[in-house]
Amino acid sequence: MTDTKRAGCRIGIFDSGVGGLTVMKQIIRLLPHADIVYFGDTARLPYGGKSPETITRYSIENAIFLLKEESIQFLVVACNTASACAIGHLQQIFNIPIVGTIMPGAEKSVEVTRNGRIAIIGTKATIASGAYQREIQQLLPNAQLFPIACPLFVPLVEEQFVDHDATKMVIQTYLEPLIGSGVDTLLLGCTHYPLLREVIQEVVGEGITLVDPASSCAEAVSKLFSQPPSHSSLKPEYRYFVSDDPHKFQLLGEKFLCADISDVRLANNY
Amino acid sequence: MTDTKRAGCRIGIFDSGVGGLTVMKQIIRLLPHADIVYFGDTARLPYGGKSPETITRYSIENAIFLLKEESIQFLVVACNTASACAIGHLQQIFNIPIVGTIMPGAEKSVEVTRNGRIAIIGTKATIASGAYQREIQQLLPNAQLFPIACPLFVPLVEEQFVDHDATKMVIQTYLEPLIGSGVDTLLLGCTHYPLLREVIQEVVGEGITLVDPASSCAEAVSKLFSQPPSHSSLKPEYRYFVSDDPHKFQLLGEKFLCADISDVRLANNY
Repeated sequence: MTDTKRAGCRIGIFDSGVGGLTVMKQIIRLLPHADIVYFGDTARLPYGGKSPETITRYSIENAIFLLKEESIQFLVVACNTASACAIGHLQQIFNIPIVGTIMPGAEKSVEVTRNGRIAIIGTKATIASGAYQREIQQLLPNAQLFPIACPLFVPLVEEQFVDHDATKMVIQTYLEPLIGSGVDTLLLGCTHYPLLREVIQEVVGEGITLVDPASSCAEAVSKLFSQPPSHSSLKPEYRYFVSDDPHKFQLLGEKFLCADISDVRLANNY
Repeated sequence: MTDTKRAGCRIGIFDSGVGGLTVMKQIIRLLPHADIVYFGDTARLPYGGKSPETITRYSIENAIFLLKEESIQFLVVACNTASACAIGHLQQIFNIPIVGTIMPGAEKSVEVTRNGRIAIIGTKATIASGAYQREIQQLLPNAQLFPIACPLFVPLVEEQFVDHDATKMVIQTYLEPLIGSGVDTLLLGCTHYPLLREVIQEVVGEGITLVDPASSCAEAVSKLFSQPPSHSSLKPEYRYFVSDDPHKFQLLGEKFLCADISDVRLANNY
């Protein structure tokens, strides 16, 4: 099988770790015949507490890896933190279509809200960047926004404390400012947060709609194709690269992708 | 002031972030006239969940930075994870005295225990390396060891949840296996854990002695000097380098060092 045979439909996705697999899952649902190469920067994760400069540098390196080594034609920045801090730089540097989570997540939130009061939760870097806030304000200038950084959510999910009482208490602490705020929409601005969806919903109550940008991001990716990569006798090819510990990525990743993962390779020297 | 003037007493310390400042604090106490250069690898932290290969590569890079850029004569690996995974490699590669936390922490635990039943807590990588276990067994072959990885302790400390009820619940969950174990000594095998000392003591009870390797590590460093760097008219010089976000390092670092930190510089391209 040559690369030419598959030309034109290889999507590259990068994330700081496994979280972006939730985006990949949605892309597979909409574009079941596309080839996908996933890169998880597991040696340098997490990105959420780092500076915009470092996040941008890492994002550029990840994009170069996917372009040079894997000849991708489309780039998806599945990591909300990297989308928030680096997508503008990536779009300036690289001459291929690039989709992140911010615009699709903002559009979805604006579509969902009835009263314009929207809470945004994410990593420190995502919230501090103001990226979601800017996009939502552009679409809905009268929106009232409640941005909250929730840096402990990622480690709690990664350490499989999702059903632990401590996690509920941490969620209550972070989301306390929303009590009485009148918010009707809560944007889950990090790929890990949908795994806490049930507890978050329990804490904020059923009246608030939770928005996960992953499916909106996948829809934006599918719109890049005038027609979706067509059915052929070839099965779509999924490749996985990480900068550290392929085995750990595979084990945790299967929970995020909700499917088997095989052939995870190590990209050296990150 | 020239480097020659200060020759022979510049100690380099590296850690994945701010935690190693607790070791630096103890070294300052014992060697108040030594010059110290501290490097925190804040762009790539945390190390605790990464592979031994990646931790070793990062550790070698950190040591090279301190040797090449700062001409250190002594190296302290203040990070337990890097000590556990990389100190053997560092000692093979670099021809200067190198002190880590493992041997001093093991010696202290063996000195403290009365019944030989010792619990060791640390990051996943520290516990999986078996480094503390091996050193203690060598010193006390009949020791009965209870190693437990506690990966959520670092983010809980970094996010200043030390006094939060959720933290106590997480500690109870991790340390549950110690109930009825007869352990009389608990080795705090990560620089962040002493900041949880009070809650940990409350959870395990007053009968268990907590051992912090930081002061034992500092004692091992002080023994490298036949006589301590002498008093002179020059004040000792403390320099700080990080691979990301000097300002954040300064703010959080002052809590770990219990002193002012100034002049934190960015070491590029990590």
